[in-house]
Order: sequence, then C-alpha cells, then structure tokens
Amino acid sequence: MRRSILETSPFLQDDCLIIECDVTVIKAIRVQVPPSDLSENLGRFHDSKELADVTFKVKGEIVRAHKAVLAIRSPVFKAQLYGPMRGKKRTSINVEDMEPAVFKALLHFVYRDSLPAMDDLDRDENKEMIKHLLVAADRYGLERMKLLCESTLCKRLDVDSVATTLALADQHHCSSLKDVCIRSLRENGLPVPVGKAQSVPVMQSVLAIRY
Amino acid sequence: MRRSILETSPFLQDDCLIIECDVTVIKAIRVQVPPSDLSENLGRFHDSKELADVTFKVKGEIVRAHKAVLAIRSPVFKAQLYGPMRGKKRTSINVEDMEPAVFKALLHFVYRDSLPAMDDLDRDENKEMIKHLLVAADRYGLERMKLLCESTLCKRLDVDSVATTLALADQHHCSSLKDVCIRSLRENGLPVPVGKAQSVPVMQSVLAIRY
Repeated sequence: MRRSILETSPFLQDDCLIIECDVTVIKAIRVQVPPSDLSENLGRFHDSKELADVTFKVKGEIVRAHKAVLAIRSPVFKAQLYGPMRGKKRTSINVEDMEPAVFKALLHFVYRDSLPAMDDLDRDENKEMIKHLLVAADRYGLERMKLLCESTLCKRLDVDSVATTLALADQHHCSSLKDVCIRSLRENGLPVPVGKAQSVPVMQSVLAIRY
Repeated sequence: MRRSILETSPFLQDDCLIIECDVTVIKAIRVQVPPSDLSENLGRFHDSKELADVTFKVKGEIVRAHKAVLAIRSPVFKAQLYGPMRGKKRTSINVEDMEPAVFKALLHFVYRDSLPAMDDLDRDENKEMIKHLLVAADRYGLERMKLLCESTLCKRLDVDSVATTLALADQHHCSSLKDVCIRSLRENGLPVPVGKAQSVPVMQSVLAIRY
C-alpha cells in the first residue's frame, strides 16, 4: 500500500492503525463419544431383575439381586455371598434390622452409583431416610455412599438436628460431618467436645442439654 | 452521622459518596464426595480374577472373567452365556478369529469403561489395534467402545489411511467416521461416494485407485 493512501485512510487515526479481520472458524467434524454408560447398564439390569441369582428377605419383603454385582461393590456382601462361612448354595438371605425401603435404596446405589430420588418424601422424612442410608452404607462398607449421605446431612444441618447428627456421625466414624457439627455447635454457643478422646462423653452431655 | 461531618468527609466528592466495605468470605466446611468409583470397583475385580466363573480360550490363551458383568455390558455375551442356546454349564467358550491381545483389551473396556493404555505399541501398531478393537466392539455390541475407536481413528486420519478407514467404517456401519473419511477424500481431490446406495461400489473404486 502507498504511504499517501495509508495516511489518508480513515483507518489511521491518532497514530493508530485499525485493522479489520474477518475470521471464519470451520468446526471440524469429530466423532462424538457419549459419556460413560456403565451405571446405566448396571441400573437397567437391576430394574429388570433379569438373571438375578440371590434373594433377600427384608422384613417379609422379597428383593432380588445379582451376587457378582453385590460382591464387586461391597466387601460385606462379598464375604456374605462368597466367604468361607457361606453355605454351598447361598441364594437366600435374611436381612435383619433394616426397612425394605432402606435396603432397596442401598441396592439402587450399589447398581447406579447414586442415591434414589425420594421425591415422595417430605423434608423431615427425607432427612431421616438419609440417616438410615448412612447407617446402611456403613454396615455394607460402601464408603462413597456414606460420604454422599454425610454431604447431604451437612447441607441440611440446623440447630434442631445438630446434636443428633453429631451423635450419628460419631457412632459411624464420619469425621467430616462430625467437624461440621462441632463447628455449628460452637457458632450456636452450645457445649462442644474438646478432643477426640473426650468426644463421646461430652457429646452425651450435649444431647442431655437438648433432650 | 451528622450532616456537617458527612459534608466535610473526604469520602464525599463531586456529589458522590464513596463507601468502603470489607467483605470477608468464610468458606463453609463441606463433606467432599469423591467421584464415581464404579469402574474402579469393576476393574479391580477384573484384575484379580477373583470369583471368575467363565473361561475363554482365545487362540490357545486362557482368559477368565465374570459372566454377570459380561452379560450386563454386552448383549452378545448375554446371549452367549445365558441365552437359550447355551449348555447347562456354559463356563468355557472358544473365541475364534480374534487375537488374545484384542480380546483382553475388549474385556478391559467391558470392566473399566475405557480403552487400555497401549503404550508399548508404536503409532502404526496402535492404529491397527484400534481398528481391531472397533471390529471387536461391533461384534460384541459395545456401542460406546465402537464410538471411542471411531473417534481415535478420526483424529489420526491421514491421506494414506483414509481409503482403508472408509472401507472399515462402511463395513461396520460407523456413520460419523464415514462422513469424516468422505470429507477428507473430497479435500484431497480423491473420488468420493455420491450417495448411500452407491457407497460400497464407489468405495471399491477408491480403494482400486490407491492400491
């Protein structure tokens, strides 16, 4: 470009040259790979009960499942179904001290790696269910499920429930939830356990204050 | 605050009042929930071969696996292991026309939902392996694995491999990979199939040009 043309150009103003560029982005064709369908595959099998090879009797209610899946996910199910203590054909098991709804929600997690929706429960029933699920997760060695329950209880913590939640957290060795409860007690001016060794007796005194 | 004090304040300038706020954000303690460990659980079971209940014989090599997991993941394994055509105790199966390394990589995907690393293979061997895995995924009805292979081949496509890749994509009904190949052929001035009905004969002419 000639200097004279450049200098008379409207794009040159105050010693600045404005350059206009048109950029066209051509989107490359790529093969789209969908996200993992592992939990969906397992969930579908759970729903259909197809090829189920073990039956649980939970307070009279029959729940069917797949031995291999249970053993893969939970060390407790594995010991129960394949351990040296099992009978030769351990295909029917009684589950004591657990509500059928809780056991079914536990199996939902075993297969789908998530907690069920529980839309039919109100706020308080939902919170109670989560507490039962935490206990069930601890009983069957499902660490991630236990943390999911801890996380939900942590988000829903209030002054009325903090003492009972702390007792539950202490009983089932949920250190993060316990920390949150202790902090909440402190913020609300309630007595707080000082050290780990003292936690249980002090916690009992906290409960005694509130009940 | 008195009006006189406000009016003499250095924070009031040109009819604007500057208000300085110190905001302290207290990070709430939350319970951290780790990501899904479903594929890790399954992968560990695969590696240990613990409770394996089916044996595959692949060109003389023995590969052990869990019937339920295979059936959950692949409709073809399900039919083979639990279908009406199976023997009463179908616990040993011969796999024809497949290299042991390919079958083992297929099982890696079945359990872990990802392709194995294949770091020991050079670029060409790796590409060949991906092609074999695409064929294997198609044979066992593993759609997501097939798409993963298609995606990898798509990224590594070059002028030398486009015609053979197109033939493979056509044979195994990989529509996205086929589209990418056709576009690449067009960009490189090679003859391209016009319509779906004509794709196979035209493709053969493409192959004839290059080989």
